[in-house]
Amino acid sequence: MDKELLKNLIKQMTIDEKIAQLMQLATPFFKGSSHEGQITGPMEKLGITNYMVQNTGSVLGASGAKEIRKIQEEHLKENRLGIPLLFMSDVVHGYKTIFPVPLAIGSSWDVNLAKKSAEIAAREAAVSGIHVTFAPMVDLVRDPRWGRVMESTGEDSYLNSEFARAQVQGFQGTDLTNDLDRVAACVKHFAAYGAPEGGRDYNTVNMSERQMRESYLPAYKAALDAGSELVMTAFNTVDGIPATGNKKLMRDLLRDEWNFDGVVISDWGAVKELIPHGVAKDATEAARKAIEAGVDIEMMTTCYANGLRSLVENSEIEESILDEAVLRILQLKQKLGLFENPYRGADVKREQEIVMCGQHRQIARELAAKSSVLLKNEGILPLKKNQTVGLIGPFAESNDILGQWSWLGAKDDAVTVRQGLHKKVTNTKLKVAKGCGVEAGTEAELEEALEAAKQSDVIVLALGEDSEMSGEAGSRSVIQLPEVQLKLIEKIHELDKPIIVVLFNGRPLDLHGVFDKSNAVLEAWFPGTEGGNAIADLLYGDVNPSGKLAMSIPYSVGQVPVYYNYFNTGRPKDAHDAQIRYVSQYLDIPNEPLYPFGFGLSYTTFSLRDIRPSSNTLTAEQGLTISMILENTGDVAGEEVVQLYVQDLVGEVVRPVKELKGFKKVFLQPGEAKEVVFELAEDALRYHHTDLQFKSDKGEFIAYIGNSCNNVTSFPFELN
Amino acid sequence: MDKELLKNLIKQMTIDEKIAQLMQLATPFFKGSSHEGQITGPMEKLGITNYMVQNTGSVLGASGAKEIRKIQEEHLKENRLGIPLLFMSDVVHGYKTIFPVPLAIGSSWDVNLAKKSAEIAAREAAVSGIHVTFAPMVDLVRDPRWGRVMESTGEDSYLNSEFARAQVQGFQGTDLTNDLDRVAACVKHFAAYGAPEGGRDYNTVNMSERQMRESYLPAYKAALDAGSELVMTAFNTVDGIPATGNKKLMRDLLRDEWNFDGVVISDWGAVKELIPHGVAKDATEAARKAIEAGVDIEMMTTCYANGLRSLVENSEIEESILDEAVLRILQLKQKLGLFENPYRGADVKREQEIVMCGQHRQIARELAAKSSVLLKNEGILPLKKNQTVGLIGPFAESNDILGQWSWLGAKDDAVTVRQGLHKKVTNTKLKVAKGCGVEAGTEAELEEALEAAKQSDVIVLALGEDSEMSGEAGSRSVIQLPEVQLKLIEKIHELDKPIIVVLFNGRPLDLHGVFDKSNAVLEAWFPGTEGGNAIADLLYGDVNPSGKLAMSIPYSVGQVPVYYNYFNTGRPKDAHDAQIRYVSQYLDIPNEPLYPFGFGLSYTTFSLRDIRPSSNTLTAEQGLTISMILENTGDVAGEEVVQLYVQDLVGEVVRPVKELKGFKKVFLQPGEAKEVVFELAEDALRYHHTDLQFKSDKGEFIAYIGNSCNNVTSFPFELN
Repeated sequence: MDKELLKNLIKQMTIDEKIAQLMQLATPFFKGSSHEGQITGPMEKLGITNYMVQNTGSVLGASGAKEIRKIQEEHLKENRLGIPLLFMSDVVHGYKTIFPVPLAIGSSWDVNLAKKSAEIAAREAAVSGIHVTFAPMVDLVRDPRWGRVMESTGEDSYLNSEFARAQVQGFQGTDLTNDLDRVAACVKHFAAYGAPEGGRDYNTVNMSERQMRESYLPAYKAALDAGSELVMTAFNTVDGIPATGNKKLMRDLLRDEWNFDGVVISDWGAVKELIPHGVAKDATEAARKAIEAGVDIEMMTTCYANGLRSLVENSEIEESILDEAVLRILQLKQKLGLFENPYRGADVKREQEIVMCGQHRQIARELAAKSSVLLKNEGILPLKKNQTVGLIGPFAESNDILGQWSWLGAKDDAVTVRQGLHKKVTNTKLKVAKGCGVEAGTEAELEEALEAAKQSDVIVLALGEDSEMSGEAGSRSVIQLPEVQLKLIEKIHELDKPIIVVLFNGRPLDLHGVFDKSNAVLEAWFPGTEGGNAIADLLYGDVNPSGKLAMSIPYSVGQVPVYYNYFNTGRPKDAHDAQIRYVSQYLDIPNEPLYPFGFGLSYTTFSLRDIRPSSNTLTAEQGLTISMILENTGDVAGEEVVQLYVQDLVGEVVRPVKELKGFKKVFLQPGEAKEVVFELAEDALRYHHTDLQFKSDKGEFIAYIGNSCNNVTSFPFELN
Repeated sequence: MDKELLKNLIKQMTIDEKIAQLMQLATPFFKGSSHEGQITGPMEKLGITNYMVQNTGSVLGASGAKEIRKIQEEHLKENRLGIPLLFMSDVVHGYKTIFPVPLAIGSSWDVNLAKKSAEIAAREAAVSGIHVTFAPMVDLVRDPRWGRVMESTGEDSYLNSEFARAQVQGFQGTDLTNDLDRVAACVKHFAAYGAPEGGRDYNTVNMSERQMRESYLPAYKAALDAGSELVMTAFNTVDGIPATGNKKLMRDLLRDEWNFDGVVISDWGAVKELIPHGVAKDATEAARKAIEAGVDIEMMTTCYANGLRSLVENSEIEESILDEAVLRILQLKQKLGLFENPYRGADVKREQEIVMCGQHRQIARELAAKSSVLLKNEGILPLKKNQTVGLIGPFAESNDILGQWSWLGAKDDAVTVRQGLHKKVTNTKLKVAKGCGVEAGTEAELEEALEAAKQSDVIVLALGEDSEMSGEAGSRSVIQLPEVQLKLIEKIHELDKPIIVVLFNGRPLDLHGVFDKSNAVLEAWFPGTEGGNAIADLLYGDVNPSGKLAMSIPYSVGQVPVYYNYFNTGRPKDAHDAQIRYVSQYLDIPNEPLYPFGFGLSYTTFSLRDIRPSSNTLTAEQGLTISMILENTGDVAGEEVVQLYVQDLVGEVVRPVKELKGFKKVFLQPGEAKEVVFELAEDALRYHHTDLQFKSDKGEFIAYIGNSCNNVTSFPFELN
């Protein structure tokens, strides 16, 4: 069906059918749902009728080929024009095979494997009947108090852009219409949702448009350039106007400047939230602001359903604005082939075969291992199989390792650390004790743990936050481990045995009381379904750790925000002529985070040498080629992430001390050396000037190359 | 001398004389200074000559009639055109008679007394030879990690504006030319210096222009409207451009839009800091950016001295831009009458008489008492004279109670708490022990304190931060009292005696471990020279506490920023239909500060009743008159601060949940009742729209009246 046919279809639609097309409701509203009929009360409360439900455009949160086929079938029976439903769901870091949380995936610096994980998530979701996933989330994050940092790939716009692109490509593939193993992507949350004040979820975001364009928008743009079919609005305000009613942001920037022609969907209830935000006096005004701003689909509230008709009748909006929104939705349905095959990939039999299949779990295991970051290792890792290991802590046998937004992931499917270690060593080599719960414990638990520790050669402490302590609405003012766990380390530490801490958490934590009481620290984040296996692979050296932090681990919450690409200020602490007091610093702690962006250890050592730029100048026509030799100088195979940063020494506006401009993850056998090459072109040196122009300035720059943001070798170059 | 004469004078000046006029150097550079000659090395390093020093326009940090007269005399001997020097100094909260720090003054809510304190500071400074004070500092502050919050009157733009105006009026009077007891004011730091990232001094400031205009600029504007003769630039960036080189901020906004015709001076070294900021490649470019942005005087660095001449010769700037700057400086000298009387108020004999005179100290005592905030009182204050008081803590006998920026204030002149209490009770009723130092203590000190406590009926714990822990470059990531002091409270608390904590500090502190271990808490800030007397007055009830917080006291550092006039968000925690989890909050602490803006207790009780608005609507032509009765329903005389807040329910942009629009500090005898009247006009309802227009919207509002931001009675009204 081409665009003209769709327009003809719209001409046949009544205004109520159009409005219903813009509505998205949860599964229980629909005939054929296993929850059908539970929703009568809510329907009345929402002011919607059966007729509107019959004409709804899309469904939120359905899953499973059988149920989705049934709902679609029932829908088409009653839908006058035969317009199929769109099924959308949160498939964020896996469908049933759960991959590590995105903050962990970001820490893998492995864009190809991230793409593969999105492809697998799409395949499992598509065969289960889902058409659209509300992913990737690409919000730039700098405040670990915010629980949704776990959903982001981190603090850097370049790294986030790389992962945004990879995830969109993984979800959508190259032929969404014909490749039924794919789902449409919906990049979120537009825009700057990752900067809520005080880390309080849904809170105010304050920044200039220039800063937003410079740091926060690139990853959304990268997702759109990769073809993301949808955009989801953010809950926050953008310069005082909630994103969901922000015409400047969505109509002017997203639609007009960026030419985005896909579907814009509100986040859950966000249209109605224009009322508590205080920019709409009632649901009708909320509807008007949202549709004028360019929101096509209203998720889960009914301002459109109850307000748009009167707005059109009173000529407050043109009916054509509805037609545009409906057209975009129908175009998406068309692109997904739903007019021809309303069931698309939904296949009950194949669903049984491929969801959670061994191949998918294997990729989850690989990605979990690559996402873990070895923060400290005083030569005690990897473990030796003849050691007796005391596995202690609330995460020793916990299956709460999937992380939030693993909607269909089952904790029962998760491999615990104990299960993972058991596959490496016999029971006799493993003493297991809980020690305490995540937030509380008993003396008996502690005693049992101390006993297990005494019987062991080495202690693996599996600690962390439970999955509900981060994620949506999981904001916390304290970012240390709960006291009971700090006490557990303290007590175990008194035994004077080697301690390895394995951390499960969705945010960077203040690790005081952890790194200083242990001999090794492995940050495993929430590693997903195969977590225990991946951790066992790492602890026993079957896989060499290669993750690098995608977000700084702060010294303490009092240091927030802390991120690697800050500005120098007029009084930098480390200037050669700096005064002792009158510099930009804290008096009581360092300016530096505890562990910086890009940092992560390996079981082997690497040497980076012979760094050679092709020239000391570059031009708009001729970029720099920077080559170097990376050698594995240790005894075991391993991967290193070589990172390229650039500093623009003088700008029209202040420029970051360093900005990531490239990275390569390279696998090397012991003794092996490979050439690593970066291409640096003029466009990588562009930034947003005061007049919002995105351009470069001629002048002096410094390139930094290394294996973290601060372990680098540098050379100057010029842009002519 | 009129403007034409000044222009003629400029015509006679060589370019080097003009450039030197724009230079400000510290006292030791000048003949006649008691430090003269110590500066040869620095002079060479700075690249300046004796000739330039002879032609310098102004002097930083000189004091004392004798020295200043001498320097001026020597200067005029060698200055070809007889242009007198301007003497400028930091007279921030007093000259030698030190008043409470500005954050405390803000907490007095007593604008008249604040004005009086500025008048006294001016009088002492003027008779000592000073012409210009670098005050008031009116930066809006929301982050207690920043040490300079002590220099601000707090978190509210209305309150700050009131104090800005009062201070300028107090410093300058109504006839600066003829009233030799006055000095010119220099409002600082333009602009938005109070919002450094992470509370790290001198750090990056990020906000939209709309937000800056709405919240941060009003107090500077109020100071200028009150006639502040000078403006000092800020160290920070404003949307990526350091304020000191920010043409948009200073040329476009300050000069062109606000028509400011006075002198703009850089903060210390801030012109040269354009280089480390990364917006100027060298000192010459820094000079060009600063002079183009509208900076007339460069403080303490010599980019102008070394760079302006070549910039003019190379036609990179017009010489006329120098002439404009020189003219503004000469106009200020003229306004101060310096061409006629270059010594102005400097009078060695009178200086002896009035500096630190009894009358000045009396006002300092009154203001210190009014600035202290009683945060908690479980009926144990005021003290009774028959009680034996254990005065314990590092501030029991400390004279470090002046606070930073009390440049000429002498700690030896400060009245300690012990000295203050001694004037109320005999030695036998006072047991004194240090307990510990501010940051460290010994077991012996602790033992001595416990012994003193045991002998006492009631304990007064004098605790706090030393003055260097806040103030410029006094940023801290931990905002609790030092551990040794928390331990002291803990130990004293175990004795189970009544405890009153008196706090000395320059920032709101996280008071966990303090308020919960004591029966009364008096926040005395840094109360100044008469601190001990004022505190004794309060503790014994000779003065009834009447201070109200001008800045929220946070629950903890993890809650920062926290301020009363936040936005509602789309998911407010306290909405009637709010979900338990999915609201804007922390999971582990409340959203509310420990003690809110506007809060403070009294020894008496007040009743606020019969609140009557003149109408339920207001218009541009006809404002609201809101009258009410305030009654002292307790047994002692006291002052109450009645506060009027307004909420705009629906805006084009989101609007704060409450905004202060008026306050009255009212003194009442026991049983006395007075009518309190607020006038609320349409212009108080204006705000900055997306297009930066400052205007009101018709619609619904709520007025809140009470004695803190959250203990209020409300009524709705409409703007028609």
